[in-house]
Amino acid sequence: MTTISYASPRRMLDRLKALGEIGATGDGGVCRLALSDADRAGRDLVVGWMRALDLEILIDAFGNIFGRYPKANDAPAVVMGSHIDTVATGGIYDGNLGVLAGLEVIETAIEQKLPIARPLIVAVFTNEEGVRFAPQMMGSLVFAGGLPIQTALDTIGIDGARLGDELRRIGYDGDYPVGKLPIHSFLELHIEQGPVLETEDVTIGAVDRVQGISWTEYKVLGQSSHAGTTPMHLRKDAGRVACEIGAFVPQMVFEMGGDQVGTVGRMILGPNLTNVVAREATLTVDLRNTDAGKLADARKRLDAFAHAAAREANVHLEVRQLTDLLPVPFAPDIVDMVEAYASAHGYKARRMPSGAGHDAQMIARVAPSGMIFVPSVGGISHNVREFTKPDDLKAGLQVLESVALRLAMQN
Amino acid sequence: MTTISYASPRRMLDRLKALGEIGATGDGGVCRLALSDADRAGRDLVVGWMRALDLEILIDAFGNIFGRYPKANDAPAVVMGSHIDTVATGGIYDGNLGVLAGLEVIETAIEQKLPIARPLIVAVFTNEEGVRFAPQMMGSLVFAGGLPIQTALDTIGIDGARLGDELRRIGYDGDYPVGKLPIHSFLELHIEQGPVLETEDVTIGAVDRVQGISWTEYKVLGQSSHAGTTPMHLRKDAGRVACEIGAFVPQMVFEMGGDQVGTVGRMILGPNLTNVVAREATLTVDLRNTDAGKLADARKRLDAFAHAAAREANVHLEVRQLTDLLPVPFAPDIVDMVEAYASAHGYKARRMPSGAGHDAQMIARVAPSGMIFVPSVGGISHNVREFTKPDDLKAGLQVLESVALRLAMQN
Repeated sequence: MTTISYASPRRMLDRLKALGEIGATGDGGVCRLALSDADRAGRDLVVGWMRALDLEILIDAFGNIFGRYPKANDAPAVVMGSHIDTVATGGIYDGNLGVLAGLEVIETAIEQKLPIARPLIVAVFTNEEGVRFAPQMMGSLVFAGGLPIQTALDTIGIDGARLGDELRRIGYDGDYPVGKLPIHSFLELHIEQGPVLETEDVTIGAVDRVQGISWTEYKVLGQSSHAGTTPMHLRKDAGRVACEIGAFVPQMVFEMGGDQVGTVGRMILGPNLTNVVAREATLTVDLRNTDAGKLADARKRLDAFAHAAAREANVHLEVRQLTDLLPVPFAPDIVDMVEAYASAHGYKARRMPSGAGHDAQMIARVAPSGMIFVPSVGGISHNVREFTKPDDLKAGLQVLESVALRLAMQN
Repeated sequence: MTTISYASPRRMLDRLKALGEIGATGDGGVCRLALSDADRAGRDLVVGWMRALDLEILIDAFGNIFGRYPKANDAPAVVMGSHIDTVATGGIYDGNLGVLAGLEVIETAIEQKLPIARPLIVAVFTNEEGVRFAPQMMGSLVFAGGLPIQTALDTIGIDGARLGDELRRIGYDGDYPVGKLPIHSFLELHIEQGPVLETEDVTIGAVDRVQGISWTEYKVLGQSSHAGTTPMHLRKDAGRVACEIGAFVPQMVFEMGGDQVGTVGRMILGPNLTNVVAREATLTVDLRNTDAGKLADARKRLDAFAHAAAREANVHLEVRQLTDLLPVPFAPDIVDMVEAYASAHGYKARRMPSGAGHDAQMIARVAPSGMIFVPSVGGISHNVREFTKPDDLKAGLQVLESVALRLAMQN
């Protein structure tokens, strides 16, 4: 199988750069928090491009934006998209790439007058990053019916603002009913945000699953005492137990092998003084696996270890599950097509899981979905130094184009 | 051996309470940071009591205060004392007890017209707590020649003030030459600040040594990355190594047994986010032992472990020694006397090390020294809830009185 491409990587890159100017932090990065003035300006720019292509603009009650071609065709569509909100110190690729590549594919179909059998849609989902308003992937979650829209609109942000008020303020409280858009299939091109593709010198990741995520907070309650005058056997050392849990996580994860990862990125001791035995310690453990059973096992083993460590140290332990997302498999046909078209274009490809969360995992609840990853230089993500080489952006665009047009043109 | 006591525990306790009013925090605690206005007011009160007893007031160039009886007697003196500065949320006993018990013993000697063979001195050392101006025990350290006075006067405090300027401001930059006071022996009565006496139902601690203290800061430098997308083998996880060091400390300490204690009370991760592998981690390890060799061994084992853990995790490690104090033995004759007089008064006594630092360990460099501990309820220290029962204060005063007068009356 070989294939040709009509899409313009240059035009897509120009749009990426233009969108990256909105909320630019001056150091190559972008700050475009969901439903901020910068988000409105970014939406206006993207919607403007859609209008210039004479797409039909549908904005739903949660502010998710859809540009449909051809207009007023309610047949199930091939949808491409992602998000354009960013973290506070984000880059210009995360999310934006999936939106602007989708737009480019539609522009290509229009220019080439391709005989598509079903509509093409480019989608922009509201508040994927979840930085200002938790949780992440909110727009696609609401779209897929995983969160009632009223609950989502009533979310209070870290700045005290109510999401629904902000949505109205920026003028993106649309009238299209949430979740009613007919979808044939969903495709999301995204930067990997990790080091695997670059390390293995592979250009295209055919994402076959999204890892399940378990976040657990362990709060250890001991008693502060003098580090010099308190014998070891009379201590209730919260810091000790926190460190023991933190050291157990990588030990268990390496033992388990496979896709399992585990991270203790956050730990806070109190009062956090060199010569005072810690009164309390809070740490969060992030566990991920593509296998739901193994992830649950890991969580159980960790809990058992934590409780035993707390008993041994004579401290109290509180355990709180903060996040518990099951792994999401993508549609096998789409994964196969991504891999096959990558090869057809002459790119090295590999199947891989996604370690991060993406809108596609929510849309996968309601339609066959898939993702295409392109390499992140240095694996750097959520950082102003986020970068993907132009040749790799081009590769991702071409694979998206081929898969989307194939899905849109076949019966 | 039995003995009688003339000292008035009531008068001492009244003075403790009166001094505790100065800098009172309103919740039973005291904030009287070194060389603050409250410290000046506290000094003025204590010096007023000394003058009322017609003691000779000697104030040295570092603000250390000595009240001598009888006046102008330059023979080596039996010195009793401690400090009256406190931590920001201190109690009324820490330090103050040693000063006011010394004053009470002198008042007793005067009232009873005891035939002493050498002078009695009550001493107030400047800045023992080291909270505003580091390091701790500064006045006694300067007195003992362990720190040049000019260096000490040039110390800049956490509020930006220069110690020498503050000393002059509060009017306690005296003209007596530092370290020239002839000392026959030094005695410090102090609250234990730990739980051992109370736990063992013992009233008097005959302190035979002060633990050596080693503070080491480990700074782990890794690389932040996404907790989901970064495979374990490609991580440079600073938090992992910090936790492993923190978990190794108690493991090693329990293995060593004896007097060894070890604490990780302070740890800071960066950026300290649940889903980001930590870029850096800083922790401090507080190790203490009464045996210098064992303490050095512990430090070496810990360093070796830390370096191995850093290599294994592919991170950089910086090690900085913050404090390295050798253990200090007290004069065996004085320790024996404390134990014997405690028994003579009918109190249960035990020999014990001090886990905290005290002025007596500095004066031990220049004169035979010893300490007497009384129980701290709940082992609580450096806390507004610091408390020692009146009967235990009385016991400590009586043992101090007996030992001091014995030293002052014998030839």
